[in-house]
Amino acid sequence: MNIDALIEGIRAKQNPTVAGLDPRPEHLPAFLLDDAIREHGETLAALAAATMRFNTAILDALHDIVPAVKLQSACYEMLGPEGMAAMRDSIAYAKGLGLYVIVDAKRGDIGSTAECYSAAFLGRVKVGGAEIAPFDADALTVNPYLGSDCVLPFLDDVGANARAIFILGRTSNRSSSELQLLPAPDRPLYRVVGELTERWGAAYIGAHGYSSVGLVVGATQPAEIVELRRHLRRTFFLIPGYGAQGGAAWDIARAFDNLGRGALVNSSRAILCAWQKKGTPEAYADCARAEALRMKEELGRYVTFN
Amino acid sequence: MNIDALIEGIRAKQNPTVAGLDPRPEHLPAFLLDDAIREHGETLAALAAATMRFNTAILDALHDIVPAVKLQSACYEMLGPEGMAAMRDSIAYAKGLGLYVIVDAKRGDIGSTAECYSAAFLGRVKVGGAEIAPFDADALTVNPYLGSDCVLPFLDDVGANARAIFILGRTSNRSSSELQLLPAPDRPLYRVVGELTERWGAAYIGAHGYSSVGLVVGATQPAEIVELRRHLRRTFFLIPGYGAQGGAAWDIARAFDNLGRGALVNSSRAILCAWQKKGTPEAYADCARAEALRMKEELGRYVTFN
Repeated sequence: MNIDALIEGIRAKQNPTVAGLDPRPEHLPAFLLDDAIREHGETLAALAAATMRFNTAILDALHDIVPAVKLQSACYEMLGPEGMAAMRDSIAYAKGLGLYVIVDAKRGDIGSTAECYSAAFLGRVKVGGAEIAPFDADALTVNPYLGSDCVLPFLDDVGANARAIFILGRTSNRSSSELQLLPAPDRPLYRVVGELTERWGAAYIGAHGYSSVGLVVGATQPAEIVELRRHLRRTFFLIPGYGAQGGAAWDIARAFDNLGRGALVNSSRAILCAWQKKGTPEAYADCARAEALRMKEELGRYVTFN
Repeated sequence: MNIDALIEGIRAKQNPTVAGLDPRPEHLPAFLLDDAIREHGETLAALAAATMRFNTAILDALHDIVPAVKLQSACYEMLGPEGMAAMRDSIAYAKGLGLYVIVDAKRGDIGSTAECYSAAFLGRVKVGGAEIAPFDADALTVNPYLGSDCVLPFLDDVGANARAIFILGRTSNRSSSELQLLPAPDRPLYRVVGELTERWGAAYIGAHGYSSVGLVVGATQPAEIVELRRHLRRTFFLIPGYGAQGGAAWDIARAFDNLGRGALVNSSRAILCAWQKKGTPEAYADCARAEALRMKEELGRYVTFN
């Protein structure tokens, strides 16, 4: 699904939140782990099974509130091939519930390798007469360090399969300034990446005026969000760093246009681990739902969706 | 294994080649695919099985010639969870043959996520009382775009588990210049990354004077190899782009010090696809061996290993 489907989901649910499905083993209630270890022994398969059970309940609890989920690939890779199967199955389950699915894998490599990554997450692989979508996500995050070569192969799937990608622009972590703020001619490096992103997206602009080549812009740099929004009129922003990392709803609101379009705000731990702060292990899904509703209400104070 | 193990392998085999184990479906002899489809049907499991059979024969044919192999993660991810199992099993098989194993995954993310990537490829994951190494590689390539945050978690495994990482500095693809050559204060961006790499590696310098935090430097920019070697005395280089991408042995020789240390040269397609140029499908392993010997001989004309 391209960026239009995401924008329409945000509008339908009046909520620009993407819930991060990034469960690390320590985020899982102990009873889920215990059950899985009883069945699978002390194996990665047990962690993958507990993760899948957790994700299923979280998705059931959130699917009528949030329009999108974002899976952090690292959390699944650390569980080995069984974890990758849990990622694939979580993507399928989320799509079955009508959710827009972003895989946050931050891939980036030379052209021939980028083709493989695109096939893995956004495309199809031929086997004899069959064509199989290995992970079948709607969108993928992409690291721009290798330049256009590492982006162009993904655009083929953006076009042919109506997918989207999000380029890392200004990330929300503290040390992001070491490279991203370096002064390129007339502007910092992340602005160069922003302008490349606008250019890469020019051929993929949808019905709502935004392209299917988006940009990751951390919530922790509000002035930069404003500046990027002013310069990049066609670029949709994926905004991590809300809540736990310190970004405030008031600041984030400036990433949106007057119709409440143009951005998607991620929350991972605040939703997934809400049970650790305000509930019981058994109530993890209800706690996630309550936090997602709270976040929706908070963002809704500053952004309206027409 | 840290960088010393790699350096000693290069010396023992008198060969600074790392063979890229990057088989895409079109690189596999048709009879391997046909056999696998007969057994597994037209599934990703069939592609993964054919890949594993190919890798096993290639590793058997190369293990006494080359000191190291590099697996391109994208080639396995595009085969889904079954492909990731083939990657895990290929790593284990290669290590069983005494080879040094680099996973070329170019990962890079914020600190808590980088911890997960490090656990996946270089570390261990706890399940109850067990500790399991999901992919168990010796080294991993890392993308620096997010700054120190995305590197420091890997250093814990470099130290505790004697692993190594290679930071992307100057890549071999054409569009790498779009960002990597941007002028930072007094020097281009890739030089900033090189200096950060030397700093990250300062605490991990081995018996041969090189740190276990290496740098990827494309063979297609010989003048830059020379310049980086002059500035970065403690940093070991991983050099892609030899052969197919145009880098010549004569140029690459300048990455090495007088003892023939300091660099590892990758060749992927030239070795894996040698059968397509100079042989028959059945002879793919012998053709790979012949090309690896040719490359060893060619590099040996310009570099001696004491």
